[in-house]
Amino acid sequence: MMTNITLAHGNGGQENNELITKIFYKAFKNEILAKSEDAAVIEDGTLAFSTDSFTVSPIEFPGANIGKLAVCGTCNDLAMMGAQPKYLTCSVIIEEGFEVEVLKRIVDSMEKELALNGAIVVSGDTKVVPKGSVDKIFINTTGIGQIQQKGISSNSIQEGDTIIVSNSIGKHGATIFAAREGIDFSTNLKSDCASLWQVVKKLIESGIQIRALRDATRGGVSAVLNEWAKQSDICVEIEEEKIPVCDEVKGVCELLGFEALSLANEGTFVMAISKEQEEKAIEVLKEMEISSEASIIGTVTSKHKGKVILNTAWGTQRFIDLPTGELLPRIC
Amino acid sequence: MMTNITLAHGNGGQENNELITKIFYKAFKNEILAKSEDAAVIEDGTLAFSTDSFTVSPIEFPGANIGKLAVCGTCNDLAMMGAQPKYLTCSVIIEEGFEVEVLKRIVDSMEKELALNGAIVVSGDTKVVPKGSVDKIFINTTGIGQIQQKGISSNSIQEGDTIIVSNSIGKHGATIFAAREGIDFSTNLKSDCASLWQVVKKLIESGIQIRALRDATRGGVSAVLNEWAKQSDICVEIEEEKIPVCDEVKGVCELLGFEALSLANEGTFVMAISKEQEEKAIEVLKEMEISSEASIIGTVTSKHKGKVILNTAWGTQRFIDLPTGELLPRIC
Repeated sequence: MMTNITLAHGNGGQENNELITKIFYKAFKNEILAKSEDAAVIEDGTLAFSTDSFTVSPIEFPGANIGKLAVCGTCNDLAMMGAQPKYLTCSVIIEEGFEVEVLKRIVDSMEKELALNGAIVVSGDTKVVPKGSVDKIFINTTGIGQIQQKGISSNSIQEGDTIIVSNSIGKHGATIFAAREGIDFSTNLKSDCASLWQVVKKLIESGIQIRALRDATRGGVSAVLNEWAKQSDICVEIEEEKIPVCDEVKGVCELLGFEALSLANEGTFVMAISKEQEEKAIEVLKEMEISSEASIIGTVTSKHKGKVILNTAWGTQRFIDLPTGELLPRIC
Repeated sequence: MMTNITLAHGNGGQENNELITKIFYKAFKNEILAKSEDAAVIEDGTLAFSTDSFTVSPIEFPGANIGKLAVCGTCNDLAMMGAQPKYLTCSVIIEEGFEVEVLKRIVDSMEKELALNGAIVVSGDTKVVPKGSVDKIFINTTGIGQIQQKGISSNSIQEGDTIIVSNSIGKHGATIFAAREGIDFSTNLKSDCASLWQVVKKLIESGIQIRALRDATRGGVSAVLNEWAKQSDICVEIEEEKIPVCDEVKGVCELLGFEALSLANEGTFVMAISKEQEEKAIEVLKEMEISSEASIIGTVTSKHKGKVILNTAWGTQRFIDLPTGELLPRIC
């Protein structure tokens, strides 16, 4: 651990995990936190509870704004534990001088997205800080959800399981990068920011037993799969040609040397299920717009426990590691 | 509503209420939010749920730091609804370059204060933003508590009720002001920052039926009493000479023209109970260190509904209004 916090400590990857483990988990240690899930499971497994602070820059970008992102982000963390989002808190920190019209747009987006989740904001907090103490607006949303399918966990993936991604990857990260740099890569590129509860609900109602589920936010699909490989002590092998990546995201990656697998998503999840259910799951996912490009990208083996292996289109193999370094700060 | 957000919009007083009502309540409206309590009551009255973001400056000050404040603040909001703090989330936004040693001190303070409440942190989020995007560190804590006494509400205070403050007022506000300005008013002045659940628990166990309860944070005792007067449609009459204010706080107020009643507290509450229970309540409160200066400061009448009247030591009367203007930004 260094003496000062660096941008890498917020990357959703290796340094971020180190900071969380060595400072926060160490002080706060308890069984629930130790599970390292997207949301805490409390009250005898009936409720899920999760928090997220949003610092995205710019605050408005193609496909969403910080308000929509704040509702999607927290509701999705609940949905990833099989929970229906129910109650949210909303805490905003606003810079002196911020435009009221922009605030209204942000809050309106939150309202719309709450309705899609069937959730309500029941408590809030508003702080205004002097100019220069915060960049425009930061939003914290914390949510409680009612668990509809128990047992979903990053710690229980088994050999032979199938790995699915729900849609084409990397769009949120590529969009924020393009918007921030003022680069107009394409008029078609926009964030995948979306609420995932309706998709999860459909999977549960269709009888799919979800083993593990996680939205691939900071650190992207790489971070999710690496954490799963370690937490469940398994090897994940994925096939490069099966990973859906749109041309616009490919363009950003080629131009800038990014890896689509490490780019952030805000409406795309990774799921582990038993092989027997993979066809049924893909069928259900493809029926819905936001998971229409769902794809089986790999399988769980015991080849290199704790590791993620990418089988490339050229027949070679390489490890995909937990992302490290600065990546993109303020991506969410 | 102006076109741009001003510091007054975060004052815990009139402009703050206007921002909350016109922007947030308007978009998010629902029955729970409309109650305007310190914490939302959910799940058939069994759980309380509350959020707070902390932006205090300086982050370390006599009596506490931002970490202790973040745990006390949210746990106290739960306690004010008669709820035992149970689960907290902790979301931090850290400025690049922040010292790891200071972060450890903050997190250690949180750990100690959690233990006093019997609560645990079950979910967290860590964001690091580039230098200049946030001033040092902001912390959001959101908590769930188990309600031990139902029916506590700012909307149900009755004529004849007694108003009690749990301790001498204004210490947090005066301390932050002194610390920020580098003024050494006194070596004895420190924030009252403390967890209040143990005091509330003792009151409940002693058979006190609490009508309304609120920690007097931003906007101080003035803000609490004005909100109660409006929400319960009653008049609150308080006696100046009964309000406990220590010499150090009096000094700050005289020097700078502040009103102790409007200064923030972080470990002092205002309580409304029936007149029959006032003696018993004072007895219970005085037994505990953090409420040893508890005092009956007034009574509920119907003289000017929606208003707070101060009977001064000189025998005159004046209205105490909801605080307005900039007050002290970043007080909590």
